[in-house]
Amino acid sequence: MKKFINSVDDVLSESLHGFASAYAPIVRLREDPTFLLRTGGPVSGKVALVSGGGSGHEPLHGGFVGKGMLDAACPGQVFTSPTPDQMIAAAEAVDGGAGILFIVKNYTGDVMNFDMASEMIGDGAATVLVDDDVAVEDSSFTSGRRGVAGTLIVEKVVGAAAEDRLDLASLKALGEKVNDKTGSMGVALTSCTVPAAGKPMFDLGEDEMEVGVGIHGEPGRHREKLAPADSIAKLLVEAILEDLKPQKGQKALLLINGMGATPLMELTLLYGAARKECEAAGLEIERSLVGNYVTSLDMAGASVTLTLLDDEITGYWDAPVITPALRWGA
Amino acid sequence: MKKFINSVDDVLSESLHGFASAYAPIVRLREDPTFLLRTGGPVSGKVALVSGGGSGHEPLHGGFVGKGMLDAACPGQVFTSPTPDQMIAAAEAVDGGAGILFIVKNYTGDVMNFDMASEMIGDGAATVLVDDDVAVEDSSFTSGRRGVAGTLIVEKVVGAAAEDRLDLASLKALGEKVNDKTGSMGVALTSCTVPAAGKPMFDLGEDEMEVGVGIHGEPGRHREKLAPADSIAKLLVEAILEDLKPQKGQKALLLINGMGATPLMELTLLYGAARKECEAAGLEIERSLVGNYVTSLDMAGASVTLTLLDDEITGYWDAPVITPALRWGA
Repeated sequence: MKKFINSVDDVLSESLHGFASAYAPIVRLREDPTFLLRTGGPVSGKVALVSGGGSGHEPLHGGFVGKGMLDAACPGQVFTSPTPDQMIAAAEAVDGGAGILFIVKNYTGDVMNFDMASEMIGDGAATVLVDDDVAVEDSSFTSGRRGVAGTLIVEKVVGAAAEDRLDLASLKALGEKVNDKTGSMGVALTSCTVPAAGKPMFDLGEDEMEVGVGIHGEPGRHREKLAPADSIAKLLVEAILEDLKPQKGQKALLLINGMGATPLMELTLLYGAARKECEAAGLEIERSLVGNYVTSLDMAGASVTLTLLDDEITGYWDAPVITPALRWGA
Repeated sequence: MKKFINSVDDVLSESLHGFASAYAPIVRLREDPTFLLRTGGPVSGKVALVSGGGSGHEPLHGGFVGKGMLDAACPGQVFTSPTPDQMIAAAEAVDGGAGILFIVKNYTGDVMNFDMASEMIGDGAATVLVDDDVAVEDSSFTSGRRGVAGTLIVEKVVGAAAEDRLDLASLKALGEKVNDKTGSMGVALTSCTVPAAGKPMFDLGEDEMEVGVGIHGEPGRHREKLAPADSIAKLLVEAILEDLKPQKGQKALLLINGMGATPLMELTLLYGAARKECEAAGLEIERSLVGNYVTSLDMAGASVTLTLLDDEITGYWDAPVITPALRWGA
């Protein structure tokens, strides 16, 4: 295992400390229990957005804390859900008096722990469950579909709407709408190595790719020989469109997300290939994002995400955002 | 070789087309000869900044084209200098009547070709040569020191000053000041694979790292056993400080740059370690950046860059920038 670490036990803590000191004007780190929150304290009268999940998917979720997106993020150990006490402490720290909205990726551990936190908070809390991965129903860590790169789109859109002072019920409905209109699917070219394990999570032949892989290296639909980028783009876009069933002329956001070890040069190439497939299917790509946003440690691979746009979603997507990983308009 | 590509001959072209269509509001692609330029045409009365170099270091340089940074970038083939005709065409396309400033990383091929372009343009052109890498004097592709991640800091600061309408001579002087006050050094944990070669550029043992590696996989100072992140940070920061010789209390910008395949979690951990070393040496870290900005295809590795700040550099660093890879304040 070749990583920039000191000891496997301190990876998460040291990484969070480094992150918080690098982005001190935007985020702050609290410990015992651990969470990241935006600077400037709770925003009075605004619903507070709290997300979280296992670490190893950076910049998700901590990199999306800041104005226009999340109020707080709870990092679990690598690929492990955070605990309810983290979520409750985060919710209390950012509560602006208008309620707490949890944004939760659909994994069994996360759902159970966020449910527990939500129950303890009571009436002022609601949850949006993200399950955008069209690859498989149920998997190693999931009952139902998995939440993957589409999560950042839900967080961005609902975050902007919260700044606009939409109430808790409206934000929950908006988040669920974005999730319904979003589909993702990914491909792994290599495995990834969890520091504490010290070896790759799975084996993949020198000429193989895992189609429909999860962001924890969970098996996808099948394995096949590594194909040209155009074929991979076609495979992924077709699977997503089969799920979303858009009409001709539908406007969409196209996100090409790197899994962590795939260079930008390949991601922009894949973007071009995926965009051609989308346009051939009658979509109009109106918004785009390319980069490493929802990663799987050092996995080489990428995913395609499509969100069908309407004026409300586009408007909130374009609204100002100031976070470590996503920033525009301010 | 596992990459998202169609054929090795089309990697650069397809990647550029994807990039330009993903970031259409900010940049545009021209071909025959190939260069990227900012949208909105030449800015009248502003010195135009043109950079470029071999591809494979994305987002450098194309990702830094836009308001507040570069006017154009000329991408060569992977790890190969662009040609003078690209540079001349780019300069003509963005010429706002106040002169052309070339920002050139110090590699033999780049220097030769940019010199040729500059001579053909004549009086209206000047060059800033970037050679921030403190690791080695001379190397495989260089006479003198190499230009590496500090290049983005020169481009950002000089780009902001150009928006402020500084003249050609002042911008050249500012660029040279930033270069003098900037030092970088990197470590590779793995090699990288040029698509056309199809195999890793060099071999590195399972437990080894290359200290002082170049961004094309050039040899550095020495090889040693992979060390803890704290030791690596100490080694790199000490080498840079030995070169920059800052006074106690000096303000500085700290950039931790990933080489392409190193996850953000490790980069923020390394940031924390490097910052501690800097502070122990009496520096005050006033500005920070962490991410994959000047990469070496799929190399796992990272570099540390320090720029000693004064009010002028800090002010231009903070000024608004709207590029695909660096964006704030607007």
